[in-house]
Amino acid sequence: MDMESAYREAVALDNQDELSGYRSRFISGDEKLIYLDGNSLGRLPAESKEILERSVSFEWGERLIRSWNEDWYTKNISLGDKIAPIAGASEGEVVITDTTSVNLYKLAHAALRFQKGRTRIVSDELNFPSDLYILQGLVKEFGDEYELAVVSSRDGMTIDTMDLKAVIDENTALVSLSHVAFKSAFRYNMKEITGLAHEKGAMVLWDLSHSIGAVSGELNTANADLAVGCTYKYLNGGPGSPAFLYVRKDLQDKLISPIWGWFGEKNPFEFELKYRPGDGIKRFLAGTPPVLALKTIEPTLDMMIEAGMNSIRNKSVSQSDYLLRLAERFLYPLGFMPGSPTDPEMRGSHVSLRHPEAYRICRALIDPDVGGAVVIPDFRDPDNIRFGITPLYTTYTEIIMAIREIRDIVENKLFLKYSGEREKVT
Amino acid sequence: MDMESAYREAVALDNQDELSGYRSRFISGDEKLIYLDGNSLGRLPAESKEILERSVSFEWGERLIRSWNEDWYTKNISLGDKIAPIAGASEGEVVITDTTSVNLYKLAHAALRFQKGRTRIVSDELNFPSDLYILQGLVKEFGDEYELAVVSSRDGMTIDTMDLKAVIDENTALVSLSHVAFKSAFRYNMKEITGLAHEKGAMVLWDLSHSIGAVSGELNTANADLAVGCTYKYLNGGPGSPAFLYVRKDLQDKLISPIWGWFGEKNPFEFELKYRPGDGIKRFLAGTPPVLALKTIEPTLDMMIEAGMNSIRNKSVSQSDYLLRLAERFLYPLGFMPGSPTDPEMRGSHVSLRHPEAYRICRALIDPDVGGAVVIPDFRDPDNIRFGITPLYTTYTEIIMAIREIRDIVENKLFLKYSGEREKVT
Repeated sequence: MDMESAYREAVALDNQDELSGYRSRFISGDEKLIYLDGNSLGRLPAESKEILERSVSFEWGERLIRSWNEDWYTKNISLGDKIAPIAGASEGEVVITDTTSVNLYKLAHAALRFQKGRTRIVSDELNFPSDLYILQGLVKEFGDEYELAVVSSRDGMTIDTMDLKAVIDENTALVSLSHVAFKSAFRYNMKEITGLAHEKGAMVLWDLSHSIGAVSGELNTANADLAVGCTYKYLNGGPGSPAFLYVRKDLQDKLISPIWGWFGEKNPFEFELKYRPGDGIKRFLAGTPPVLALKTIEPTLDMMIEAGMNSIRNKSVSQSDYLLRLAERFLYPLGFMPGSPTDPEMRGSHVSLRHPEAYRICRALIDPDVGGAVVIPDFRDPDNIRFGITPLYTTYTEIIMAIREIRDIVENKLFLKYSGEREKVT
Repeated sequence: MDMESAYREAVALDNQDELSGYRSRFISGDEKLIYLDGNSLGRLPAESKEILERSVSFEWGERLIRSWNEDWYTKNISLGDKIAPIAGASEGEVVITDTTSVNLYKLAHAALRFQKGRTRIVSDELNFPSDLYILQGLVKEFGDEYELAVVSSRDGMTIDTMDLKAVIDENTALVSLSHVAFKSAFRYNMKEITGLAHEKGAMVLWDLSHSIGAVSGELNTANADLAVGCTYKYLNGGPGSPAFLYVRKDLQDKLISPIWGWFGEKNPFEFELKYRPGDGIKRFLAGTPPVLALKTIEPTLDMMIEAGMNSIRNKSVSQSDYLLRLAERFLYPLGFMPGSPTDPEMRGSHVSLRHPEAYRICRALIDPDVGGAVVIPDFRDPDNIRFGITPLYTTYTEIIMAIREIRDIVENKLFLKYSGEREKVT
């Protein structure tokens, strides 16, 4: 395969793509930009822009306080119900609220209290650092008898199930893991791990940030206890759009959220002085939600329900495999190495490639004055370049163009002009 | 004073108003609407609309992930520094983050841990219910030896300092109060109460939701320990815009936020596996902020810094007194009673009036088919109508027109057509 035939293949694959129509439902402020970072911040759906315009000018600007009754008040819950099928959960099990970090705190805290007497929390070193920080804070809060067991990765890319199994014991209160690892895209078998934990009486809290909207949801199938996740990656909710949380139905009235905010109260507008937890999942809400950042999530949820998670997942696997084939052919000879599992069953919807000069290569890719196109992947310490495959708008042509651009930059050493100082934000 | 001369006085006062120019910097989708609910949801500043348009189309739609470095990442802190002078705090003491409820949880939790051995929390029954709920949740969490002492109001409108003093003892860890009460607008003497608490070794946490941007800030003058507050009322941040928190500088490295999210970490983009608290106030951040709902706050902060809190406060007192004079003349004869203290020193920037038919009167005021104008105040159980005075855009003419409308509705019993079922959102 040479570059030209690879390009022809990309065009053919785009022509066959049954999801290709969705791309036009996103705004592309810069038509020539090759954006492979939808796993950090998803693109702007055209309908989200319209919703915002209406929310600002009409709902806030004209209807003002009346909009709470007319539109806003039920959004935490109604949009949660639209996330549910994407996450493989049921109606009444998901709400949108707060941030992933705060939701993780609330649910892990609730689990630790529910599991009183058990003092071990299990996680792994591929987990997103903020998740580990939250768990470290909980250990500090709950006291000296508590411990956080962090399973190591043997290959820096995956976690061996046996290693995880070895630390989940009868004293384990909670297993808190990212379903898909932020750096390597390693994906756990949710059902298997949940089963392992349940055998020992441990609860499992899944962080779906890097899997929601990218792999088919399986919370109910896996009998998962708890989950949290982010809406600004594959769900295209916009920068810092509020997160979601899931509590399996039978656990909802057994767990106590530590943060008793008024939106979680039975009827906040009765202004009772004594807190009465809301029914079901509602009790895991806390304060007033950031409406403008919440409403922009809905268009993608509608698109995903319409397209179906199976189609989305199939395209994700096809595009990821295509990218890996191209990498093998064009990039591995230039010093690149795989940074993600090759088996699609063990992977989310991004692909990591490793290179000793990854950071400077990324800088060159992003620089409009270098090479033929601006390509935005994501750099992650120390040597990972992440390529986000977002089936609603990523094309095969973009993938081949990105690979060609990387090849040109590395072959011609165009990255040498940059220094190594680092700053980057997910 | 008859209605006509009162109206002439309003016009004259508007003509003399040195802040009158600010009104045109807000969008008024409905020119005829008389909006006296800026203490629930502030109006839309024209510049906030422009900022949103740019944030959506350019920053999200075109720059995408690059905007984190180009604009978004520092906003929690830079906008906190603009709230500081409005709150009477210093640079580096305020950040915008999360919701008021979550911030109250974080700071009250930190205070209880810092004050270990002391097991009493003091609040009052005029406090906003969500604040009381959060404190109730903390008592439940911290254990049976903890208690929440809720001081009663003798008149349903104010809290007697002696009653508060009586329950703050050597065992009191924390006094958590609203600076201005959400229903009656009763305002505490922040310096006096803080002093009382400090004498006993208790810390004080002020909720500024109903005072920030309406009364001159005095956190530093009062030597306040902690504060939280909302940005969607007088600060016009938009529906559910994120809240702020304040920690006095010398306490920042003594207190531990329970929620160790990545935005509070020293350098989240180094992705360290072990949490290192950020410097100073930064450590009280948690997750990724809702950018679109955060950026809309800035224009009002700029306007307030420009106008000066003294001018704003003077106009607020003048308009509130004017409203109370009109009420005494035109409404008390119709069965209305004062629901707020008459002394402006004891009041925030809204005025409550009470009437047995308050709920149905509010419905008639809001109904476009009843009376000559749509007037939006706020109803609060059981019999309060709140009138929010927002000096940046409220006119004296609006106040007299609202009073005239209420008089017409009550005199002509236009409220009788409504039933009594209730729903309303702050």
